[in-house]
Amino acid sequence: MNIREILEHPHVWLAEGAEASVAISSRIRLARNLSDAAFPGWAGEEERVRVWEHLRSVLSRLPAMEGAVFAGNDELTEMDRFLLFERHLISREHAGRGRGSGIVLRPDESVVIMVNEEDHLRMQALSAGLRLSDAWQAIDTVDSQLDAKVSYAFSPRWGYLTACPSNVGTGLRASVMLHLPGLALMEEIGPLVKGVSKIGLTVRGLWGEGTDAHGHMFQISNQVTLGEREEDIIRNLEQIVSEIIGHEQNARGRLWRDRRAVLLDHVGRAAGILANAHILSSREALDLLSVLRLGMDMGILSGVSRSDVQKLMLVSQPAHLQWHEGRPLESFERDQARAALVRGVLATVLGAVKRGRRKKK
Amino acid sequence: MNIREILEHPHVWLAEGAEASVAISSRIRLARNLSDAAFPGWAGEEERVRVWEHLRSVLSRLPAMEGAVFAGNDELTEMDRFLLFERHLISREHAGRGRGSGIVLRPDESVVIMVNEEDHLRMQALSAGLRLSDAWQAIDTVDSQLDAKVSYAFSPRWGYLTACPSNVGTGLRASVMLHLPGLALMEEIGPLVKGVSKIGLTVRGLWGEGTDAHGHMFQISNQVTLGEREEDIIRNLEQIVSEIIGHEQNARGRLWRDRRAVLLDHVGRAAGILANAHILSSREALDLLSVLRLGMDMGILSGVSRSDVQKLMLVSQPAHLQWHEGRPLESFERDQARAALVRGVLATVLGAVKRGRRKKK
Repeated sequence: MNIREILEHPHVWLAEGAEASVAISSRIRLARNLSDAAFPGWAGEEERVRVWEHLRSVLSRLPAMEGAVFAGNDELTEMDRFLLFERHLISREHAGRGRGSGIVLRPDESVVIMVNEEDHLRMQALSAGLRLSDAWQAIDTVDSQLDAKVSYAFSPRWGYLTACPSNVGTGLRASVMLHLPGLALMEEIGPLVKGVSKIGLTVRGLWGEGTDAHGHMFQISNQVTLGEREEDIIRNLEQIVSEIIGHEQNARGRLWRDRRAVLLDHVGRAAGILANAHILSSREALDLLSVLRLGMDMGILSGVSRSDVQKLMLVSQPAHLQWHEGRPLESFERDQARAALVRGVLATVLGAVKRGRRKKK
Repeated sequence: MNIREILEHPHVWLAEGAEASVAISSRIRLARNLSDAAFPGWAGEEERVRVWEHLRSVLSRLPAMEGAVFAGNDELTEMDRFLLFERHLISREHAGRGRGSGIVLRPDESVVIMVNEEDHLRMQALSAGLRLSDAWQAIDTVDSQLDAKVSYAFSPRWGYLTACPSNVGTGLRASVMLHLPGLALMEEIGPLVKGVSKIGLTVRGLWGEGTDAHGHMFQISNQVTLGEREEDIIRNLEQIVSEIIGHEQNARGRLWRDRRAVLLDHVGRAAGILANAHILSSREALDLLSVLRLGMDMGILSGVSRSDVQKLMLVSQPAHLQWHEGRPLESFERDQARAALVRGVLATVLGAVKRGRRKKK
């Protein structure tokens, strides 16, 4: 099996997790470095190649990574790397790297390791829904097995050493991707972000850039990696996220009770546009699909499933779209291909406008 | 028959006229005043009442106005008067007037006379499509018959005298309402307005205010009333309008050929939103119905008729909507009622989104 074959399969995001109508996915990432090699930012290409080859060899014999596929960044096309980025498996930064960096991926996409991104090892486990402890167990197992085979850069005083000081200590970043259209439509995202920041958590958008909320998706993660135990970081995040899920469900209830026309209008327009537009940008598609998902989760819309919506959210991204079409597309071609794809999936389950034939002039 | 009963019937606009896909309606209006009474702006209420009673009596015996209904403005509710305004039968100014002003209307709405608007008599004939000469014949007959019964304010040197100097001479304003979405989507309205103004014609929007183009509707009319024969004014306007219709058809052809995705996107979105929105302002409804009409005229959409669209354009206006609902509505209630009305008509012929039932939380 290779990376391409993995990409043909449904994404782990498409599974139905706990609290799935609000919590899309849970993720734990560990940053680790080897004690006997320069950090990637300070290493020359040959040293990075040597680290990648070494880790590839060690990881291929790790029980927790049995069946994983390995690919050096230079063995992948740029489009492959951007497909991995759009699936949230690797960072944008890693997608831009070439020889001397690599990717190790479990075929179910539940664990992915970036070698020579900012650190020698960025290992992450991903689960659908709110299941941080599952993700923690998965990545902790990989980490323990690997720890027995290599020598990590570790200080008894500071903990794991990393390229960026913000990761020193546990090297752990736990995050949950939440779909918060109810709070967004009730205009309560601002206070939420403010409140969450005060208690040491960070709110980011879907692509991690600032808090620009494409598709009403928000990543909540821990800010502090130093001076707290992994289990405490995770338990704290899980508790806050549970509260946010409660707020979102409450906001949806208030929308239904107090602002039903506005809610139905948003959902109706989103469905009407998605089933009939001929030009759709990726941003607009994501925002409308988000509202469609809300309508479906609230039982307002029938005929469309959560996995239809999630698949469309993924495949309407630029690299996935071009991969689906089998060729590179200019921006305007992409907007047309995206609209055709979305219409194709939704027009049969939602209402498509009846088309006539063009009359002779 | 009274005014209310007339309003129950289809509007003359709903008929199919010549060049109906572009030319909505043709209209000729004559301004006349009596020589033996002060102009309305200078007359007291009693004098205006006397003029209205006198003209009501004369007009009721005029063969050309046989079967007409008569209503003093004070006999109509404010809503009745705004219904007449929304049907383009009376001016906004006249709708605001009370005792001493009145309306005379042929039941088919083809001729309407405002008494004591700005002038003693504002008489207009209306035809569907581009049929200025029909309208001219209709109103010229009324004018000739009336001329034999009353004494018009007329100067051998200047012609018919009117309250506003811009109407002195023939007192004639000929206009054609055109639907120009093709030129609007090709962004060619600006040059058109400029060119038409240069040759002594005026371009106004649907409601005559400036050239703000609600629903891509434009009124083209003559500016000059002095020093030209009626037939020449009408022939000139008809010729220019025929050319504009040609430009519009050409623009639609170019849209289909060169910008098909943009065209299909506009039409698809308009249909998808109209069939599924729950909140619609009158401006948005008009603009989207305009695009729907274009889609239907170009054979892109099936299942919806031109008269469906025209009826919705009319009944989605505020006074018609409240009349349809049988009660006064606040602005937000109107936007919801309008959306429900439009959905009701279009959702069955276009595609409506499937609705589920709200699940128990």
